[in-house]
Parts: sequence; structure tokens; C-alpha cells
Amino acid sequence: MRMYDIIRKKRDGESLSREEIRFFTENLVKGEIPDYQAAALLMAIYFQGMDPEETRELTFAIRDSGERLDFSAVHGIRADKHSTGGVGDKTSLVAAPIVASLGIKVAKVSGRGLGHTGGTVDKLESIPGFKTELPEEEFIDIVNQVGAAIVGQSREIAPADKILYALRDVTATVDSLPLIVSSIMGKKLAADDDCIVLDVKTGSGAFMKTLEDSRALASAMVDTGKNAGKKMMALITDMDRPLGAAVGNALEVIEAIETLKGKGPEDLTQLCVILSGAMLYLAGKGGTLEQAEALASQAITDGSALKVFTEMVRLQGGDPRITEDYSLFGTAPIQHEIRAVEDGYITGMDTEGIGKASLSLGAGRNTVTEPIDYTAGIILHKKTGDRVKAGDVLAVFHTSDEARLKTAEDIFLRALTIGPEPPEEKPLVLDIID
Amino acid sequence: MRMYDIIRKKRDGESLSREEIRFFTENLVKGEIPDYQAAALLMAIYFQGMDPEETRELTFAIRDSGERLDFSAVHGIRADKHSTGGVGDKTSLVAAPIVASLGIKVAKVSGRGLGHTGGTVDKLESIPGFKTELPEEEFIDIVNQVGAAIVGQSREIAPADKILYALRDVTATVDSLPLIVSSIMGKKLAADDDCIVLDVKTGSGAFMKTLEDSRALASAMVDTGKNAGKKMMALITDMDRPLGAAVGNALEVIEAIETLKGKGPEDLTQLCVILSGAMLYLAGKGGTLEQAEALASQAITDGSALKVFTEMVRLQGGDPRITEDYSLFGTAPIQHEIRAVEDGYITGMDTEGIGKASLSLGAGRNTVTEPIDYTAGIILHKKTGDRVKAGDVLAVFHTSDEARLKTAEDIFLRALTIGPEPPEEKPLVLDIID
Repeated sequence: MRMYDIIRKKRDGESLSREEIRFFTENLVKGEIPDYQAAALLMAIYFQGMDPEETRELTFAIRDSGERLDFSAVHGIRADKHSTGGVGDKTSLVAAPIVASLGIKVAKVSGRGLGHTGGTVDKLESIPGFKTELPEEEFIDIVNQVGAAIVGQSREIAPADKILYALRDVTATVDSLPLIVSSIMGKKLAADDDCIVLDVKTGSGAFMKTLEDSRALASAMVDTGKNAGKKMMALITDMDRPLGAAVGNALEVIEAIETLKGKGPEDLTQLCVILSGAMLYLAGKGGTLEQAEALASQAITDGSALKVFTEMVRLQGGDPRITEDYSLFGTAPIQHEIRAVEDGYITGMDTEGIGKASLSLGAGRNTVTEPIDYTAGIILHKKTGDRVKAGDVLAVFHTSDEARLKTAEDIFLRALTIGPEPPEEKPLVLDIID
Repeated sequence: MRMYDIIRKKRDGESLSREEIRFFTENLVKGEIPDYQAAALLMAIYFQGMDPEETRELTFAIRDSGERLDFSAVHGIRADKHSTGGVGDKTSLVAAPIVASLGIKVAKVSGRGLGHTGGTVDKLESIPGFKTELPEEEFIDIVNQVGAAIVGQSREIAPADKILYALRDVTATVDSLPLIVSSIMGKKLAADDDCIVLDVKTGSGAFMKTLEDSRALASAMVDTGKNAGKKMMALITDMDRPLGAAVGNALEVIEAIETLKGKGPEDLTQLCVILSGAMLYLAGKGGTLEQAEALASQAITDGSALKVFTEMVRLQGGDPRITEDYSLFGTAPIQHEIRAVEDGYITGMDTEGIGKASLSLGAGRNTVTEPIDYTAGIILHKKTGDRVKAGDVLAVFHTSDEARLKTAEDIFLRALTIGPEPPEEKPLVLDIID
């Protein structure tokens, strides 16, 4: 088998066989396929696509390219959620304890943030003492004790995806349905869950800009997961505005805690309840999807989800008092208000721009080794659909470095569109695919 | 300017600007564009094509990526021919002296062979003493004295093409019209000719398999050359059979000399006369194309072309007695007949296969440093259209290594198609584009 023939076959619109796809991923991980041949194949896939069978085989090949996790020591049904990348998305921090409080296990292996989207692991590390690296037995012990634990990826999961993603990022081949599906699901299926709920973002800043494309992506991921024996569901959610009001690590954890206390922003609370409901429903908890959502809501109201979260923080080495005393997170020395200069309605927010503004305040990293300022970020006072008057506070920037304010403000203001009429109202969840 | 944006633009079907194309070729030659990005762009060009302006700009950018030759010291009009690659194609060895004998200068810088096609430089080096590396003044002196000289490429001409061609070869992006045009014409325009005649091969083993595609390729090359101020003409010729009977270096030179003596195979003689006629016609010699062809024929009949060839060999250090005594080339110790095992007509010859059979007898090289057995090769006794009976000699293999015979015979026989009916007769020159 020769890589050249595989490229030519895909270039000519033919379907690749399981063997050809495995030849590619296995030799890629061994370093035996030159980058230029991998790049040529990626571009050929961009143009010719992949049929459902090829997409599935590529996904499974990526899953099998590294170590696979074994959570069989966890007692009970394991559910997880995965978002295709959002700004201000702290739903994992809320949904995991909700679901765990109702007896379904969440053994979550999460990523770090890079670029404009934050990572759950980085957010958790803003909690004093919180350990995101744990020996596997300790991780599973915590899941069995409290129902949920969230750690960073330590083993080499799906290394083929790491190589492919890095290449796609520099060769303009990110926006390809089969490549997105296989990248997300290849990693996700290397974990060991029974039920997976996907949150597929749509709109500006998301992989898929239109609802139709997002539906196709969601369907392909759901099908692939089912083929691997998982219970699957996907929500398609609006990414034309950030989720909640907080962007930045400690700020987002505080907002998640507020949400677990029933005092969170409406959109965030709603999405967390729907995601948790879907996880519970797939896990066979609570009858209908609506009934499962009602259980999730109840877990907020009765404080049981917050209790799980606090206990999880404690068992993972974090200071459990943070749920009561936010000052323990520390506070950014500079808090700077951004004010509107004109009257109107916020008709659009480029969430990627908001994410980049937060990044430039110190909340994220441009390279994997850059340190993070956990207290930095943005609290939005106005979001898409809100009316603003000149002089109104649009947002408060949190940072430790005054020199960063100017750039961040420029990026932030470019990300806002203000117009004379309010925009059409869109529901947060646009569709459910199962 | 970022390479990423150039890839994305082409991927999305937009036209690249002159500046973007130059950014690409210039940084490619400097080693500042990673192979994977170049490969991704090549595949995007494969799918999206290039409009005539982009194709021209890429051609000029490749031409300007290295040194350009200066033949202004040559007295008179300079004409050259270029073939898109053929097996058994020794027309340059015949056409150059014909044209030179009629007062038009041929200052030819030729390539070496790699893979299944032979190179003119390799063929000439089978002449004892012949030097294909000459100081530039000596080269131009010979052209001025005798009318023609043929040397190998010593300066770094069109290095961008070298990099791109190597990449295309391993990423399945060879078969792209703008990439073929810019590769051939980029190099050709770096030389310093007034008139260029292209021999565009069509059929099995050629870049373009159909007459229609070959016409499009020829037109694009002619247009690009005209845009660079050259007089241009292209012949579209059949490559469904090798040209002449000889394949292999010394064997081909001997056949070229026979042709200059008026005793060459009909197809080869005809093509050499047409090519020379076209070169003379473009150079303003002889009125109509037909009249120019008549002059070319006459140069064979009256021996003046052979005289130029012999003189060129002498001035380039070769033994001029080779035109009278072919034994000076040496002879392969093994001459092995390949016989037909069935009756029928040869309905097709895969010329690439014939070239590979010759290569495996020792006549060519698979890698640039491999030595060549100049006496090795194949003399075809039967070609497409010929009737054969079981036991007839199809070809004679020349080699120095008996161990090579078996593989070569297998490749050779696979390249022949024998059927019960004679194939449709096709003219050698299928079209002329000017």
C-alpha cells in the first residue's frame, strides 16, 4: 500500500477502505508519512468529502491511534457531554455535578484551552489547590465516591488527531465535515462512556456557520457514536453570543457556582439543565427528556448538585470554601469598564472576538507553554438583543496588566455590532438530533 | 501576507493575485514555506484550477525564481523545441541540426532523464568524448560557429519548479493544467529563445490522455509563451506508440543519425521534418509552414543537417567518426530477442511500459545518482498497427546484465496489447495550435 495511491484515490472521489484509512493513521503516528502527503490527503478530503462509512472508519482509526481509557472500575452508568467549542462555556462545571447528584457517573477527561476558547481544565485550576492530574485509581475512586471527577488528559489519547489537527490548522482544511467528526469523535470514543451528549455550536465563531451544516455535523457525529455502541444525542445551540456573562477562568467558575446555586444567568442555566437532562435521559434516568430536565432543575433547586461540586473540589485537592467565599480565587487588580458610545441595540457579538479580547487580557494562552492569569477576563453587562444607551457599561475587563487594556478593548469593540433595531430573537437550543 | 490565507483563497475558488503567487514561489525557494502548506495549495489548485492570468503569473514567477539565461551573444534568430515527454523521442538530435543548417540558431539547454523517459543530455553522453557541460562562452561560440549546441542545465534554472515538481510527484497533483503549463513554460521561458515549438504528447503515458485535454494544454502554453514575447506553435502528437524503433541512449543516437542520413523510421522522420519546419517557419524562414517543411526535408536529403550534427559533435568534444562507425558507441554484450506467442495485430503499446522496460535493462536511472548503461535499450521490430505471427521477433533487448532480462520482458509484454483486428490508424500529428 502506498500513500500516493491513497491520495490519488480520494482526489478522484473514490471511497477509501478501512485498510487504507488505517494505513494512513498508523503510519502517520509512527512518523512514516511525510506532512506534505498528509496535507495533500486532507485537502483532497476537503474537496471530495467522505461517505458515512469512511467517516466512521477514520473516526475509529483515530480513536485507536493511541491509548484508550478504561473506566470499567466505575460503578454504574457513565455519561459525558462534549461541546464543539464555545466562548464562556462553563456548562461542564454545572452539568457534571447535576448528573452525578442523580446517580449517573461523570468521569470527565478534559482539555486545556488554546487560542480564543477556554479549557475546562484551565478553569478548574483557578480553584486554589485543585489538582487536574490524578493517578487513574484516585480519579476513579473520586468518581465512585462523589459521582463526578474532572481531570486533564495525561495519557496519549488519539495522537493521530493531534497531528492531523495541527496540519489542518495551517492548511485551511479545518472546515471539513468528515475531518471535524473524526477529530471530535475519535478523541471522545477513546474515553469510556456509555452515553454522550454533544453540544454542537452554530453561528459565527463555530465550525459550522449555518443551521443546516450544523445539523449535518451533529447527525454524522451521533451516527458515528451509535456505531461505536454509545447512546448519543446532540443539541444544536446558538453561538451568536457568549454563554452567560463571564469569560475567563475564575470568573467562569464563580458563574458556574452561582448557576449551581440557582442564581446563574438564564441562558447558561437553561443550557445546563437541557444538557444534564439529555445525559440523564440517555442514561435511562427519569423517563422522558422533559422529565429528566425536571430532575436536573430540581438538583439545582435542592442544592444537591452544588453539594457534589463542593465535594468534588475537596476530593480533588481544592479549597471547598470557594463556593462560599469567592475572594479565595483572588481578584484582578485592574477592573476597567467599557462603555457604549452610541445608542442602539446589540445586534450581534462575534464570540470569537470576545474570546480573543479575554485572551489578550491574560485569560488564555497563544502557545501551549504560556502562563495563564486566572483572575483575568470579561464580565459582560450587555449581550446580543440588549438595548444600550451611550455611556452604559457594556462590560468590565479584569486584568493584572494595564498595558493589555487597549488592545483588548479594540478587539472587544470590533466584535460588537450595534444597530437601531433589536435583532430577531433566537432560541438557545435550535434543534435536538438523536 | 500569510500562506494560510493564500491556500484558503484558492481553496474557495478565488483567483490569486500576482503578489500572492510571487509570495508563494519566492518564499518556497527560500525554504520559508513548509512542504505541507505547498502541498495543500497544490491540491487546492488541482481542484479549483487557475484562470489564464493566474497561470501566466505562476509561470513567470517560476521563470524568475532562479537564474535566467542570456543568449544575446548568439548571432541571429534563436529557435528551440520542447517535448512534453516521450519514450524513444530523439527528435531534438535531428531537428536541431536541420534548423541550424538553414541559418537559424539552436542554443539548447536540455535535461537528464529520470524514470521512464530518457533525457537528451544522457543520449548525447553515449557519444564517446561528448561534453554536455561547457563554459557559457564556449557554448555560445559553438552555436555561432556551427548553428547548434546542446548542453545540460548547469545554472539553477527555475528552482521553484524543481521543488514543486518533486512535491507534485508524491502528492498526486501532477495532472493539473495550470501546474503543467507553469512547470514546462516556467523553465522554457528562463532560456533565451525567440521561437519555441512545443510537441505536446497525447494518449497513454502522456500528461493528457485525451485530444481535447491536450488541445487545452497546448493552447495554454502557446498563450503563456506569446505573453512572454515569444513566437509560439504547438503540435499535438500521438503517444500511443514510441517514436521510431530505438529506445535507449546509444541506440537512439544511432537512429537519429540514420534519420539525418534519410534512412530513419518513417514516423520519426516525419515528426522531425514537421518540428523543424515549424521552428523555421516561426523564425521567418521559408514562407509558409509547408515551404519550411520542404526546406527541412531538403536539409536531410542534401546532407547538410548531418554535416552540422557531425560538426557539433566534434566541437563539443565528441568523436565525429561515430556518424560513420556505430561500433564506436560500443555494443551491449547481451542481445535478446522477444518473440510473439500468438497471432494478431498490435492494437496498443503503453509507451510508459516500454520506457520502464528499457529502464530496467539499464538504460535509465531511478534515482539521480544511478549510473546509466549507454548501450542498453530496446529495438522494436513491431509497433502499434503491425501484424504479428507467433514466433515473430517483437523486439530485441540490449543489456549488459542477463539478470535484468526477465523483469524487462514482463514489463514489456504487459505494455503490449495484441488483438484480432488492426487498430484504427491515427495520424502522427493530430493538431497544430498557434
